[in-house]
Amino acid sequence: MTDWTPYTAKARAWFESLRDAICGEFEAIEREAGSEARFEYTRWRRDADGGEGGGGERGLMKGRVFEKVGVNVSTVGGALSSDFAASVNGASAEQPGFSATGISLVAHMANPHVPAVHMNTRFLTTTKSWFGGGADLNPPLPYDEDTAEFHAAMQAACDAHDPQFYARFKEWADTYFYIPHRKTHRGVGGIFYDHLECADAAAWEANFAFTRAVGEAFLAVFPKLVRRRMAMPFDADDKARQLEWRGRYAEFNLVYDRGTAFGLKTGGNIDAILMSLPPEATWA
Amino acid sequence: MTDWTPYTAKARAWFESLRDAICGEFEAIEREAGSEARFEYTRWRRDADGGEGGGGERGLMKGRVFEKVGVNVSTVGGALSSDFAASVNGASAEQPGFSATGISLVAHMANPHVPAVHMNTRFLTTTKSWFGGGADLNPPLPYDEDTAEFHAAMQAACDAHDPQFYARFKEWADTYFYIPHRKTHRGVGGIFYDHLECADAAAWEANFAFTRAVGEAFLAVFPKLVRRRMAMPFDADDKARQLEWRGRYAEFNLVYDRGTAFGLKTGGNIDAILMSLPPEATWA
Repeated sequence: MTDWTPYTAKARAWFESLRDAICGEFEAIEREAGSEARFEYTRWRRDADGGEGGGGERGLMKGRVFEKVGVNVSTVGGALSSDFAASVNGASAEQPGFSATGISLVAHMANPHVPAVHMNTRFLTTTKSWFGGGADLNPPLPYDEDTAEFHAAMQAACDAHDPQFYARFKEWADTYFYIPHRKTHRGVGGIFYDHLECADAAAWEANFAFTRAVGEAFLAVFPKLVRRRMAMPFDADDKARQLEWRGRYAEFNLVYDRGTAFGLKTGGNIDAILMSLPPEATWA
Repeated sequence: MTDWTPYTAKARAWFESLRDAICGEFEAIEREAGSEARFEYTRWRRDADGGEGGGGERGLMKGRVFEKVGVNVSTVGGALSSDFAASVNGASAEQPGFSATGISLVAHMANPHVPAVHMNTRFLTTTKSWFGGGADLNPPLPYDEDTAEFHAAMQAACDAHDPQFYARFKEWADTYFYIPHRKTHRGVGGIFYDHLECADAAAWEANFAFTRAVGEAFLAVFPKLVRRRMAMPFDADDKARQLEWRGRYAEFNLVYDRGTAFGLKTGGNIDAILMSLPPEATWA
């Protein structure tokens, strides 16, 4: 069986360099808006929260354009709890070993015309190894032009690797980011993928290249949308619609999001898990 | 077997008269604060949401003292879904019949010195019949004096009916209103009780008298606390602490509250179920 340790290290290095590129670009946008806002980074260790090995670094910026943006990179490993192991791809109570490295990002924007966004990619190993992730756009006040451009960027990243990826992963996002009790989606979609398995080193390289492409597509398209909308005037009604829309976002993340629920109920790093919650939200 | 239909009707009449008394008192408080705010009532029918018989009335007031207060009375009945029936006291897939009548109230206050509050009492029947409910205080900025007075009122209501009630039901509230991922309680407690079963008409009368006493104790003590604190000056820091505290309240209700989760996942009346969410909340 392949020893995935060096592959995990390679994936981690990429996630960290992607983080650096994204955070640098977001800080550049803040400077363009006349703000001095910078990311502040906090390291956390999993054992401090009662877990086993590993930890991560949470980056948080509160600026003029980015009302609240969190970027978390983490690399953890150890044994899954026995009741949880059975539900994880390739793991079991007898073979609970796992490692995971990934980046996750959520941005809530000050101007309601600028879309909020979520992006996450990760590499996991148990007795199997796979990549997962995606990116989805969450505009309080949607513009067809922005939605089309975001999807086109994700489609280009997909099409370069597999002609079936985009249709599959777009539908997966539509299914996943649905709020049943509101009978509505959280946003305007994007792509969501999981269990992109690596049978051997060649498959790993292909899936890693795809995962890099998703991160690069995000970095190319999202700042463009931000710059297009960040100076648009908005009124109290627009802001009120944004805050109410953020209530739906919080509902999705607290009620349905699998990662959030798992993190909360198993004692992960609360600040990192709940980084995704909006800085301010309202309920009528 | 006792036919509980007339008992359900009697309980419903009480819940509606308690609602009238509470809403009248809350409107009087608004007038004392120079506001003309009144409750607005919306009736809903369960069949409109895909359920069977019954429905309710949701009262909502947004005032100067009560930033958002919801009071919902509902009386519903029919057959529990077969996968849910087994988890309900006295019900099963073979005997899924049930009826329920109750009042629930959540008040979020404008002034952070005034405690938020939750109160709910109900009468249910399956092959068994029982009362449940409670009231708990949720101050963003707690005062020992208010906490003691609220608990004393609940204790007096308990002690008049059973010397063991208060200790049991206070502990039940402490256990229930705990937020594990924050390692903190939602508020400063109160009482929580369930499955107060009615073996016969005499037991029903005793449990109904206790449930009325809880409602009357709430009506006597909470307006007193509101009047004590509603004119206290507060600054931006106090308000910020209140809004952050409300984020915890929303987390509890969306992640842990059994009634909310059940309502959301089985397609109840969303406005009534989510009435409890704060008008505004923040996450750092």
